[in-house]
Amino acid sequence: MFFKIERNFLIEELTKCNRIIDNKSVLSYSMGIFVECDGDCVSFSSMNSIMNIKSKVFSGQGGLEFKDTGNFLIRGKYILEILKRMDDAYVSISKIDDNLISLYGDRSEFSLNILDDSGFPTVAFKERGQIASVETEEFKKALAQTIISVNESNQKLVLTGINLNAAGESLFVTGTDGFRVSRKEIYLHEKTNEHINTNIPYKTILEIQKLLMDKGVCKISLMDNTCCFTIGNTLIQTSVLEGQYPNVEVVFPDDFATKIIVENKKISKLISRADIPSDEASATVVNMMIEGDKMIIKSNIQQIASFEEEFKEYSLEGIEEQNIYLNPRFLLDALRTFEAKTIEIQLLDEKKPIVICSEEEKTLKQVILPMSSN
Amino acid sequence: MFFKIERNFLIEELTKCNRIIDNKSVLSYSMGIFVECDGDCVSFSSMNSIMNIKSKVFSGQGGLEFKDTGNFLIRGKYILEILKRMDDAYVSISKIDDNLISLYGDRSEFSLNILDDSGFPTVAFKERGQIASVETEEFKKALAQTIISVNESNQKLVLTGINLNAAGESLFVTGTDGFRVSRKEIYLHEKTNEHINTNIPYKTILEIQKLLMDKGVCKISLMDNTCCFTIGNTLIQTSVLEGQYPNVEVVFPDDFATKIIVENKKISKLISRADIPSDEASATVVNMMIEGDKMIIKSNIQQIASFEEEFKEYSLEGIEEQNIYLNPRFLLDALRTFEAKTIEIQLLDEKKPIVICSEEEKTLKQVILPMSSN
Repeated sequence: MFFKIERNFLIEELTKCNRIIDNKSVLSYSMGIFVECDGDCVSFSSMNSIMNIKSKVFSGQGGLEFKDTGNFLIRGKYILEILKRMDDAYVSISKIDDNLISLYGDRSEFSLNILDDSGFPTVAFKERGQIASVETEEFKKALAQTIISVNESNQKLVLTGINLNAAGESLFVTGTDGFRVSRKEIYLHEKTNEHINTNIPYKTILEIQKLLMDKGVCKISLMDNTCCFTIGNTLIQTSVLEGQYPNVEVVFPDDFATKIIVENKKISKLISRADIPSDEASATVVNMMIEGDKMIIKSNIQQIASFEEEFKEYSLEGIEEQNIYLNPRFLLDALRTFEAKTIEIQLLDEKKPIVICSEEEKTLKQVILPMSSN
Repeated sequence: MFFKIERNFLIEELTKCNRIIDNKSVLSYSMGIFVECDGDCVSFSSMNSIMNIKSKVFSGQGGLEFKDTGNFLIRGKYILEILKRMDDAYVSISKIDDNLISLYGDRSEFSLNILDDSGFPTVAFKERGQIASVETEEFKKALAQTIISVNESNQKLVLTGINLNAAGESLFVTGTDGFRVSRKEIYLHEKTNEHINTNIPYKTILEIQKLLMDKGVCKISLMDNTCCFTIGNTLIQTSVLEGQYPNVEVVFPDDFATKIIVENKKISKLISRADIPSDEASATVVNMMIEGDKMIIKSNIQQIASFEEEFKEYSLEGIEEQNIYLNPRFLLDALRTFEAKTIEIQLLDEKKPIVICSEEEKTLKQVILPMSSN
């Protein structure tokens, strides 16, 4: 087994596989990257307890040349470190015997020990079932805008990931931790008659975010209890979170009493000042008291500091008096997801969910529950 | 007590003090920054177990205005965090009562709790004794070039810092861990008749490096067991390391048998390839076998990989055959300190210290001991 490939291209492919490896694993086969040459292409794959990844590289891609079939399992960490220190544009790899591969460029030559691959499972990547496709750039943005509301250690298993719900022309991407909801609508690459409704684990979302390039299409295939994402030459297949995702529609208020229209940057800076630093993990409670054309923002942490600021640079529609308490971190997280210059904060009363949205970005909605005043 | 000052200027002064604070301390007075207005200037000071720092700001500097005398002790962490989140160009601080200061800009206002300052010691900064002055830029570079050979946890206390030795026209800055020596000569700002020979703790060196600006002069004052550095408006005073610093002159060989002249970049990349990655903290042993116009570099880590490369892009003077073993990390650290494009590696035999120097940077010398071959 022999192949020659661009060094930087190889680094990229190995990095994708290496990222998901659980280095604390004690099973040698799950510590490595499986490299296989089947006569058709060279593939790189790895796995952890929730997902599998596989990249296929065909002749000519990344300057790939190969001969003979074969495979080996290698520790990603060391080979990547070595490849990064090399100077050559191209590197060649050949399997010498059952324990050793040779990695060489024009001048340097490394002999690398390989791992026992007898336990490495053959995984079937299922690119079929219910299928939907989205633009990678849009999907990447949507995941970033909704993952902010996901708590990886949520007690409710189904909330430890992101819900994908595709039907007709749209994919709804939703995250919630029970105290806030992030929801983004993106258009499907092609209209579909199928219906996808599944929950992707937090850790898989993080990997998908890294794989999504600025251009291209991501195909989502749902079958049985696994979901497979096809991104460029890479497949990532994950187990999905079991359980019924809550109907978040019900928390989106139909109506509001007060609408505040404000520059995102200005309100963000104001709220970050009100978020008094402390050693506690929990945020300060911030009181927002609206009285027509001015609001008073107040917060207080015992033993450290208290804060007060009057703010007037907004316009208001509806009821002019409101007095709400909120978690500044939740509001700041939500505000950060908007690229829009101007955002709207919609309130009903001090107990009803607060909606943050924007006329400029109608497909994104952030909802946060107010806190109680004591 | 009241003062008004540019926000960014205040952040800078408080940051200097905050950096040295040991946050694990249980004594409230050593957790804070002491801010004092004595009618003459506003000063900021703090301390830890080995050093004290004090910055004085006079009327007009950083837009400073003040009235009334007074002082307070404040947790640096919180006030810095708050200042960074503010928007205002100027901030005002006034002491309200024994427990509280008010910090405000144009619109926001914070009330901050202060610490009990009853234990905060009055420290005399001694800007006298034996005195030498150096250019800050040169001094900063010299510290960076020599600290690489210092091991903060060295068993020999005197080696846990940097030796400063000033006399006549020069200051010698030296670091060693017993296996390598870094030495840099810089010219004194003014010729001196005094003789300074002292050892500055590692932690103090790190702080001094941060305080040294690109322009200006640093005054070094040695008196009794403390050394005081005056850098701009800031004084940093440290206890010095007791003990006799070893005479490193003796390890610098008078003579050499082989001189290799090579591009720094090329030899650095070669050696970094030979430094095979592993989980062990210790580096690989690298074997450099010189045979006239070519050298063979080899290394090997059991269970991981072995490496071999032939290298020819150098010129050689003297004996053409050498076979040495060395620690690649030590050599790489040494090579990195040179700005010169071309460096020289001087060898006597496989047991004698290796000198790395450059015709372009004659004031810097790095010496490393070779390793034994087994």
